[in-house]
Amino acid sequence: MKTLCSPALKDIRLTDPVLRFRQERCFDSTIPAVIAQTLKSGRIQAFALKWKEGMPDKPHIFWDSDVAKVMEGMAYTLALSPDPDLEKIYEEWVDLICSAQQPDGYLNVYFTIVEPEKRFANLMYDHELYCAGHLIEAAVAGYEALGKRKLLDCLCRYADYLCSVFGYEEGKRRGWPGHEEIELALAKLYRVTRKENYLKLLQYFINDRGTSPNFYVESEGKNSAALMQVQAVRPVREQKKAEGHAVRQIYLACGMADLAALDQDESLLTACRELYDNITLRQMYVTGGIGSCFAQERFTVDYDLTNGNLMYAESCAAMGLAFFAWRMYNVTGETKYMDTVERCLYNGILSGIGLCGDKFFYANYLEMDENHSSRFSRTREPWFDCACCPTSFARFIPQFGRFLYSVDPTEELVMINIPAANHAELELNGRKIVLDIAGKYPYDGMIKITVGTSGRFALQPRIPGWCGKYSLCLNGKLQENWCIRRDWNAGDVLELDLEMPPEWIYSHPKVTSNSGRVAIMRGPLVYALEEIDQNVPVRSLILKTSSPLKIVSSAFEILKDVPVLEGVAESETFPDESLYSTQPPIVSTVTFRAIPYALWQNRGDTNMAVWMRRS
Amino acid sequence: MKTLCSPALKDIRLTDPVLRFRQERCFDSTIPAVIAQTLKSGRIQAFALKWKEGMPDKPHIFWDSDVAKVMEGMAYTLALSPDPDLEKIYEEWVDLICSAQQPDGYLNVYFTIVEPEKRFANLMYDHELYCAGHLIEAAVAGYEALGKRKLLDCLCRYADYLCSVFGYEEGKRRGWPGHEEIELALAKLYRVTRKENYLKLLQYFINDRGTSPNFYVESEGKNSAALMQVQAVRPVREQKKAEGHAVRQIYLACGMADLAALDQDESLLTACRELYDNITLRQMYVTGGIGSCFAQERFTVDYDLTNGNLMYAESCAAMGLAFFAWRMYNVTGETKYMDTVERCLYNGILSGIGLCGDKFFYANYLEMDENHSSRFSRTREPWFDCACCPTSFARFIPQFGRFLYSVDPTEELVMINIPAANHAELELNGRKIVLDIAGKYPYDGMIKITVGTSGRFALQPRIPGWCGKYSLCLNGKLQENWCIRRDWNAGDVLELDLEMPPEWIYSHPKVTSNSGRVAIMRGPLVYALEEIDQNVPVRSLILKTSSPLKIVSSAFEILKDVPVLEGVAESETFPDESLYSTQPPIVSTVTFRAIPYALWQNRGDTNMAVWMRRS
Repeated sequence: MKTLCSPALKDIRLTDPVLRFRQERCFDSTIPAVIAQTLKSGRIQAFALKWKEGMPDKPHIFWDSDVAKVMEGMAYTLALSPDPDLEKIYEEWVDLICSAQQPDGYLNVYFTIVEPEKRFANLMYDHELYCAGHLIEAAVAGYEALGKRKLLDCLCRYADYLCSVFGYEEGKRRGWPGHEEIELALAKLYRVTRKENYLKLLQYFINDRGTSPNFYVESEGKNSAALMQVQAVRPVREQKKAEGHAVRQIYLACGMADLAALDQDESLLTACRELYDNITLRQMYVTGGIGSCFAQERFTVDYDLTNGNLMYAESCAAMGLAFFAWRMYNVTGETKYMDTVERCLYNGILSGIGLCGDKFFYANYLEMDENHSSRFSRTREPWFDCACCPTSFARFIPQFGRFLYSVDPTEELVMINIPAANHAELELNGRKIVLDIAGKYPYDGMIKITVGTSGRFALQPRIPGWCGKYSLCLNGKLQENWCIRRDWNAGDVLELDLEMPPEWIYSHPKVTSNSGRVAIMRGPLVYALEEIDQNVPVRSLILKTSSPLKIVSSAFEILKDVPVLEGVAESETFPDESLYSTQPPIVSTVTFRAIPYALWQNRGDTNMAVWMRRS
Repeated sequence: MKTLCSPALKDIRLTDPVLRFRQERCFDSTIPAVIAQTLKSGRIQAFALKWKEGMPDKPHIFWDSDVAKVMEGMAYTLALSPDPDLEKIYEEWVDLICSAQQPDGYLNVYFTIVEPEKRFANLMYDHELYCAGHLIEAAVAGYEALGKRKLLDCLCRYADYLCSVFGYEEGKRRGWPGHEEIELALAKLYRVTRKENYLKLLQYFINDRGTSPNFYVESEGKNSAALMQVQAVRPVREQKKAEGHAVRQIYLACGMADLAALDQDESLLTACRELYDNITLRQMYVTGGIGSCFAQERFTVDYDLTNGNLMYAESCAAMGLAFFAWRMYNVTGETKYMDTVERCLYNGILSGIGLCGDKFFYANYLEMDENHSSRFSRTREPWFDCACCPTSFARFIPQFGRFLYSVDPTEELVMINIPAANHAELELNGRKIVLDIAGKYPYDGMIKITVGTSGRFALQPRIPGWCGKYSLCLNGKLQENWCIRRDWNAGDVLELDLEMPPEWIYSHPKVTSNSGRVAIMRGPLVYALEEIDQNVPVRSLILKTSSPLKIVSSAFEILKDVPVLEGVAESETFPDESLYSTQPPIVSTVTFRAIPYALWQNRGDTNMAVWMRRS
């Protein structure tokens, strides 16, 4: 097992065309927007514990988690882009949250003032431990990013209380989180504090989950269908397929990977590998979206990847998959995991937030047509009553930098995971390694890496799974070996060339939704056809895979500098209004244009498809 | 407006290979099965009114309707296939049902013994008027088919009570049926009794529905989304598209067509035509199934006709569409309506019941694959808690004969609607017209019609919309005119030749689910590919529309005499286990076989598709 480390956020300054733009919008638009919504909905005020029956803004069982995620995002934002006004709000919110803590350490608005008699009474559905997990993550973020202890100390008291309630020991109660999240939070808290009781509680939650007699059946009277939804049918090491609620499943997987690393637990790592393989080889959209069924927001069966708006692919779930794959990469060093991080990042995650930064998709469709009956909105929305997705973006986007590098201290190795342009000052066994990466990745595969630090260490750029042809030059000289260990001189230049021709992508025939269809990728970017770019309906098009795809520029200002793809297609029209006919459609030849999927629905409400018919 | 009449059930004896077989199975399997289930579930015993809180088999708000539909089916069955044991059960059930009638005429088990205080308190959801409608239909069936009056008299008392409760008049309450059905039942009751108050109540229910101020909003506090589900957003004449719950919508349409005929109301007929056109040109599966969304069992938007098991197409809804189109045919004489009756009958209706006669689909999928997450069962089931579909078959199948002919007394015309083989003794203005139709329709288009009655009248076979080439001979002589009015001699022979080559069927490009796909029809039969007949997965096949389809025989006993179609296809396989690949699938050439869609899933659980990829 490897123990790769990710950089601290403030060590990375993005300068690339995609992530930097999105992060700036996060700072100036997303963070203010989610703060405003958190105030407007009464979520933060609820921590004053003054709500009483009959008053407006009744607290909800998962409100604490939304506030916590906004706090986490604020902490990262303050680290990267200090702002006294924002810091003042942050400090006030910390004070308010800490003030809601009960004498025994318990900290949950709903179960303090709305249903205090139900504390931990219904673990499957009541989200208490989920809220606790997000508060812990927020506290760790404030400490790690800003060095602030108050919220961390508060959450340590809550965590100590939780350790006194749950566990194997005599006098403690059994019980598992109904919405996993606290597991990965406990791993973070343990890494920061090194307090063994947090690790023990994490071990308990992971290792006891799904064992017999089943807690949910015995103590909460739940049936087996309910167990599947929360991944509690069997112990985690026996679960071979992703199942149930997608976000729950993927957060659990993150906690499992964390514990595998902390305990150097090979059997748990094997379980993680099996889950990962099932997801990425059977249950993942080409965009990195997961959870194909909107009903219960869940995983279903292998190869069930319908594209229309009966699908789901929640923004939070794609972020969860990126977090899981990133953990798997850091514990194995295997690049396939980073391929998935990148697939999610540039496609199924960024599709969930508009270029404006303050509108969000809950479900990330791969196809939109006016013949689709609506489940979720066709366009991005400013907020949702269930506000997990907007608040997830607020805390995810500031963390982009974490994914770009991994450092292996034992090997004195710096791994360049995603070569998006940035200035990095990485810590490697006490030394500072300065790197400058230039280029337009992911819009272009030519990358220039300037080493700013002299001394001996190794540098290793990742060869992406999507890349068939690539080269690496050191100071102009072609390299055979991609792990370059040498005595570096400040000013040394690595030139990385990842060829990224547009590619036709085929889907496994068992995915019936995609049979006879083709998608387009270029580098890590999945493309989509939006109706606004075509002269004919998207649904009428049959892409000619024998014709080349060429890169063109868009006339739309919002797509300036974005490589748009153009190709040849047939377009079908029907001779008359009949629904069914013995006459085949009439075919004409047209050109089509495709844009990166993550950018769709930024030019008004228009039809779209990723998987297109092919000829 | 025309006033075509349908034959009495006992006037038709089926001798064809499809309807006769299904009707025999209905008599010997379906009817006993639904009687057994009605007893087993306590539905009929509930009419003893002895249930009390805490006892098993608590009555449900729509149980009365299930019993009524079984009674209706029993009445028809007794008329066609007399059986003293069955008649004894029938009589006992009549007695039991009548014994439950209250002194004021009210007759509803649930709202008599479970929630008596809620009588007519929640019309939108409580199904009281729906149950009343089915009881009235059962009563009319018993009277018309068997000449039995007891249940009819009982239901007249109930209908009189309803007339005293609902209506425009001072002192009566406004209110509309939340699940339409009583409208068409009142039309039947009025036709049998000619009592004006039933017609007036029908007029009230149809003409007042959806008017402002909206009853459901004002009196029941419902919101606008709920209104759409029950077709109460606007007055029926202003509704241009089918919407909401499919069975509700189509039963309402039946009631509207009935009232249009009774009142000779052109504006109502126009509304019916608009609804019909919207359904058949925008919202109907090629099988005649309607209601494409399983959630709320409803119509959605134009061209939303997904094929997988996120679809719906309830068996009851297809029967409802046949009933509606049949009414429209009898009031207009336009053959397009009979085309739809036939499409539903031979495809989307018969698919809902197994050849065994006692297993049923609730949802009629057009595609099944193991990658589909299950909503409803993949295979037919013996019964459902919501048992509408099995009981609908019990009353629908004995009525097949009704659809075969229409008689126009003013024109002295007998119309042969569907030329399935049968012996008919039709009533035409007091005369008996005997016809013998021979042939294997719908498996073959050669039909021999022997006239068994001398005298002057006209005979007119329908030219089906699916038929491109046809001829008609009278005593061996080719006819130009298809309406043959003459002095017939007993023994005259008409030979009808409806050419029925296998046809490739294309779907309007706006139906994205079918784009790039093709279906197969031969005559009125939609075909399907079942995996059991192929050497490769159904999902892997691309049908070559340039290759001919030939008729072959199946080696399966259950498909003896059924024309199976064979053609050429390409089959795609994938080079490896990857989910997405830049490598296109590997293609090989295979033959495929298709069977009539209505016969699928009669040889075990196997994958299936109607709309296949084409090349």
